[in-house]
Amino acid sequence: MTSINRPLVICAPEPRSLDLIFSAEKLKKLRAGYRLVETSAEDVPFLGNSILAQARYIIGQPKITSEILAKMTQLRAVLNVESNLIDNMPYDEIFQRGIHVLTTGAVFSLPVAELGIGLALDLARDITQADLDFRKGSEKWGGDGNTTSRLLSGSDVGIIGFGDLGKALRRMLAGFRCNIKVYDPWVPPSILLDLEVTPSSLDEVLELSDFIFVVASVTSENQKFITAESFASMRPGAAFILLSRAEVVDFDALIASVERGHIVAASDVFPQEPMPLDHPVRQISGFLRSAHRAGALDFSFKQMGNMVLEDLDLMDRDLPPMRCKRAERETAKRMRSRPVEKN
Amino acid sequence: MTSINRPLVICAPEPRSLDLIFSAEKLKKLRAGYRLVETSAEDVPFLGNSILAQARYIIGQPKITSEILAKMTQLRAVLNVESNLIDNMPYDEIFQRGIHVLTTGAVFSLPVAELGIGLALDLARDITQADLDFRKGSEKWGGDGNTTSRLLSGSDVGIIGFGDLGKALRRMLAGFRCNIKVYDPWVPPSILLDLEVTPSSLDEVLELSDFIFVVASVTSENQKFITAESFASMRPGAAFILLSRAEVVDFDALIASVERGHIVAASDVFPQEPMPLDHPVRQISGFLRSAHRAGALDFSFKQMGNMVLEDLDLMDRDLPPMRCKRAERETAKRMRSRPVEKN
Amino acid sequence: MTSINRPLVICAPEPRSLDLIFSAEKLKKLRAGYRLVETSAEDVPFLGNSILAQARYIIGQPKITSEILAKMTQLRAVLNVESNLIDNMPYDEIFQRGIHVLTTGAVFSLPVAELGIGLALDLARDITQADLDFRKGSEKWGGDGNTTSRLLSGSDVGIIGFGDLGKALRRMLAGFRCNIKVYDPWVPPSILLDLEVTPSSLDEVLELSDFIFVVASVTSENQKFITAESFASMRPGAAFILLSRAEVVDFDALIASVERGHIVAASDVFPQEPMPLDHPVRQISGFLRSAHRAGALDFSFKQMGNMVLEDLDLMDRDLPPMRCKRAERETAKRMRSRPVEKN
Amino acid sequence: MTSINRPLVICAPEPRSLDLIFSAEKLKKLRAGYRLVETSAEDVPFLGNSILAQARYIIGQPKITSEILAKMTQLRAVLNVESNLIDNMPYDEIFQRGIHVLTTGAVFSLPVAELGIGLALDLARDITQADLDFRKGSEKWGGDGNTTSRLLSGSDVGIIGFGDLGKALRRMLAGFRCNIKVYDPWVPPSILLDLEVTPSSLDEVLELSDFIFVVASVTSENQKFITAESFASMRPGAAFILLSRAEVVDFDALIASVERGHIVAASDVFPQEPMPLDHPVRQISGFLRSAHRAGALDFSFKQMGNMVLEDLDLMDRDLPPMRCKRAERETAKRMRSRPVEKN
Repeated sequence: MTSINRPLVICAPEPRSLDLIFSAEKLKKLRAGYRLVETSAEDVPFLGNSILAQARYIIGQPKITSEILAKMTQLRAVLNVESNLIDNMPYDEIFQRGIHVLTTGAVFSLPVAELGIGLALDLARDITQADLDFRKGSEKWGGDGNTTSRLLSGSDVGIIGFGDLGKALRRMLAGFRCNIKVYDPWVPPSILLDLEVTPSSLDEVLELSDFIFVVASVTSENQKFITAESFASMRPGAAFILLSRAEVVDFDALIASVERGHIVAASDVFPQEPMPLDHPVRQISGFLRSAHRAGALDFSFKQMGNMVLEDLDLMDRDLPPMRCKRAERETAKRMRSRPVEKN
Repeated sequence: MTSINRPLVICAPEPRSLDLIFSAEKLKKLRAGYRLVETSAEDVPFLGNSILAQARYIIGQPKITSEILAKMTQLRAVLNVESNLIDNMPYDEIFQRGIHVLTTGAVFSLPVAELGIGLALDLARDITQADLDFRKGSEKWGGDGNTTSRLLSGSDVGIIGFGDLGKALRRMLAGFRCNIKVYDPWVPPSILLDLEVTPSSLDEVLELSDFIFVVASVTSENQKFITAESFASMRPGAAFILLSRAEVVDFDALIASVERGHIVAASDVFPQEPMPLDHPVRQISGFLRSAHRAGALDFSFKQMGNMVLEDLDLMDRDLPPMRCKRAERETAKRMRSRPVEKN
Repeated sequence: MTSINRPLVICAPEPRSLDLIFSAEKLKKLRAGYRLVETSAEDVPFLGNSILAQARYIIGQPKITSEILAKMTQLRAVLNVESNLIDNMPYDEIFQRGIHVLTTGAVFSLPVAELGIGLALDLARDITQADLDFRKGSEKWGGDGNTTSRLLSGSDVGIIGFGDLGKALRRMLAGFRCNIKVYDPWVPPSILLDLEVTPSSLDEVLELSDFIFVVASVTSENQKFITAESFASMRPGAAFILLSRAEVVDFDALIASVERGHIVAASDVFPQEPMPLDHPVRQISGFLRSAHRAGALDFSFKQMGNMVLEDLDLMDRDLPPMRCKRAERETAKRMRSRPVEKN
Repeated sequence: MTSINRPLVICAPEPRSLDLIFSAEKLKKLRAGYRLVETSAEDVPFLGNSILAQARYIIGQPKITSEILAKMTQLRAVLNVESNLIDNMPYDEIFQRGIHVLTTGAVFSLPVAELGIGLALDLARDITQADLDFRKGSEKWGGDGNTTSRLLSGSDVGIIGFGDLGKALRRMLAGFRCNIKVYDPWVPPSILLDLEVTPSSLDEVLELSDFIFVVASVTSENQKFITAESFASMRPGAAFILLSRAEVVDFDALIASVERGHIVAASDVFPQEPMPLDHPVRQISGFLRSAHRAGALDFSFKQMGNMVLEDLDLMDRDLPPMRCKRAERETAKRMRSRPVEKN
């Protein structure tokens, strides 16, 4: 393929980098198939008109004005590998022109779900505390160490939010044969039933679960929608596992509920990252802490590149992209994630 | 049912007790259907001849001599709720008479397998250490905390021993879509293939797995069959999870391998229980400790009673028992478990 | 809800009818929530401007010109319950305005897949012919009647086309543990791998399958893409099951291949429907005939209404529809199905 | 291995033959590992005392008297490849000596279950009749041909008898997501629950199922246990699929119920095989006939040899056999199958 024929791709994948999201082999494939213009997000507006006019794809989430967009007459897709939708593009115009906005956040589903199961089993069996006790010589043997132990198998599980991550959790839970309730107002009941989970109200999930996994994205509508009352309504001893964004929860209320001994909890996300060194969450018992490590595995980042390549191939053939998730006209501007500062 | 018609059951379930293994409701059912002679294991020989002659079942594992056995002319089954086969009965005569020897150890499969998955995920993601670091304020955020993290999903898993527990592990791993190799010389290959695991040699399991679960019973033939060489042959960084009995492993070699950093490990069983307070296993890193807590959940003990009742019902109807596991003529005397001292 | 607030829906669902696609209960729900303008497809252009201006949804696939479309300023979605995309709307403008075009063909996946499995098992075991022989007294007993019998379980299965129907087939085949190869150039390989089927070329599917299911839609590009050479390349005795559209196959070549005894086949679709009474396909052996009955179950039609209601609810809440399938800007005009003349 | 060391096997596998049940490769393996004494069932008693004294295994089901048995001092197992237990051996003595009686009938589970699903789908969709109509030019197109069609997916399924065949049916039905009720008085409820089917009474299965599969063996207790009343209690239009033995059913009542149009049915087994040429079952509609062809596939016979080899290997290593099914002391003499006259 001569360079003149190869589609042009503007690459501004920060905070990712091409090396982070493509394996050596896949990067070679990308370079062989496309003309890459590697730049930074802030320099995109300063690319020459000729480059802009030829660009078929953008990898990244640079700020784009209507003016710049108008110059990109060949643009077919923005492949947002940051995967948090920031409101820095004229989405209305983008959708009107039929340009796809694609996100690759699904790559995190598998590692986040796995960590979620790990945290749930730790809470159920007190794995961390039991190990600490053993180190100190104060371990309890056999049944004496199991006074609060329970099974994940056969338990009532609630999942709040049912996107890729919720679905990954469901799949991983298959062998545990839980009764799974799902609350997600964006997903119609019959889709949930087809996946053999029970469509439920938020209250049902909160009140009737032994394990509650929160995997809802943060939007303009759901900030702190899990409140002190929510925690109070949970079953005594319920395990609350927060995996998506701290903003959906009243975090102080969460801590208070754990401190009071009403529930146990684990969280991978926090209202501030890093949390202050003197924050009580660092010391309370019945709380398992993970420093936003759930998704950030090299495996996942490399999956991003694979997904991008597969969708480029489809779009090159005038087919709709299928691998990445498409931002939706209706919801793109409702998203409220913070920018990703750290891979 | 008049008392005269109800079958007589000698109950000597120690170290269990009837209250431990039967829920209130099930115990009521047992008492309604059977005449119970509640005694201790050591007093069984001193039961009157009339009692012995009427006994249809024994719940427990009392020492029984040929002489006593001869007096129990109606005996149909010994329901061993300790579930470790101790060589304290004339098994040849028992089998010759067609008396079933039934064990209820399968009740532990579910909780042990769950803890096994929990330990594996902890080793894969360093859940315990990450929580400790967070408490101390030395946690690493995002990808920085994931330098040794890996996925259980899609990994190569080895299972050594494929009884009820191995099968429970396999089922729980279903949602993780691992490639599972199994070594169990007592199980023919086609049964393993039918369960969609790969029949493998011990060396294959040791050398080609990312996660190795040891769930083999200890027998007269397999003591310390996992040796220093075995550990050396494992993949660097492999996670070794010991769930059945410490005796099948050269435990010092295990510790040495972890100390050397060649593998990481978790164990629920130890050569001495409790371990000495100054034993190095209490301090090494890369090792997760659980004080023989894997199976001893109240849920599991209550399952024992359920299983016993179901098999009593079958045998009362002259049908073969199906719920408990039968001791086998060929293997009963090969078992080498220690007596259970603690529930 | 006062009538003035309820969204207006233009209903022109022919060849369906509201009674066909909605249960009594769901129709009541529809009427309660929406103002329905029930009309025929051909009368849609003659609806008054006020109606057109208020219409939020169209149920049906009426011919719509740019002029009419321009008047429908509130239109959010065309819910095409015929489910065959006919090129009778200005799709470019529709997509530009962000109006969803939704099809409900997924309701047929389940019944069509079931019939497909039934036809495959019939071909594998000669169920129909064996019954005919039994009626005539010429049946063959036991193994004598099984000289050409084979198992679906464990066999090599090929699926051509992997939309909803292909996915339904895959799910139904789960218990048969087949090796499934899939050819679908519109679906990226990693999606297939994630569903545990093998992405394959058309030739691989044709040449290496014991059972071949054709479930591909007909497009501008794939008419008669299964040719005489395709049939010749199949394994001797392979079973070919055609479930989507006759147009994707060289039907004469199919018949010739069956007549020659090279393969066996079943089809639910035909180049002419009904086929001429003297057509050879009516008499050849090794061929199982079904008169386009695969999908048209009342159960499926009623599902259409359920799907429509669920997506209306999402769109009323300014959320993207999820239940129906969206027509895609890239492919909408490539579809080449005949209009549905018969339910 | 010198001939003197190889275990001696008496082979009298009629009505099977070694060539039927062993592939060429497996037969070679058998001959390499064992000394085979190939004889007929009727000649077994006339084998010399030395042969009898050396025999470790019998492949077949020859009549054996106590006297002959006494001479076979090394006998470890009778591998009954006919798989119907005929009461022609002193089972009490056999079990007392701990000799295993093994049957290989499980090989038929897969093909019988597949045919069962095929018959069920045929009854649900009228595949056979629709094909006949098409041949005659009287086919009905689309929905017109589906007035009695229904789905297997999501339906209420009843299974009567839950041995290997019932379990195979359950597995194959997995993708159809049926609600499965099981009646089997020999299997305790918790085993059924663990397999995610609902333990049920016979009446519940009969009265509450859309599809009823009969896969129960015939015993001394269950002959004709499905009576005229049973059929009358079924849901109108229910599909009754008989796969095990005609003796468990009042066959005349079955035919009457189908003739009356109350149910539809399919059967692979008949009270006489072959049935008289003028028997009404040959002509009634709503009844699908299969001439005892369900299991007799070459694939299945060859599986027998594989199972035999795997269990010989275990028993040679003083391990209990696991692959074949063991006859049980309690039930061996209750079985009432006819001898197999035809492979």
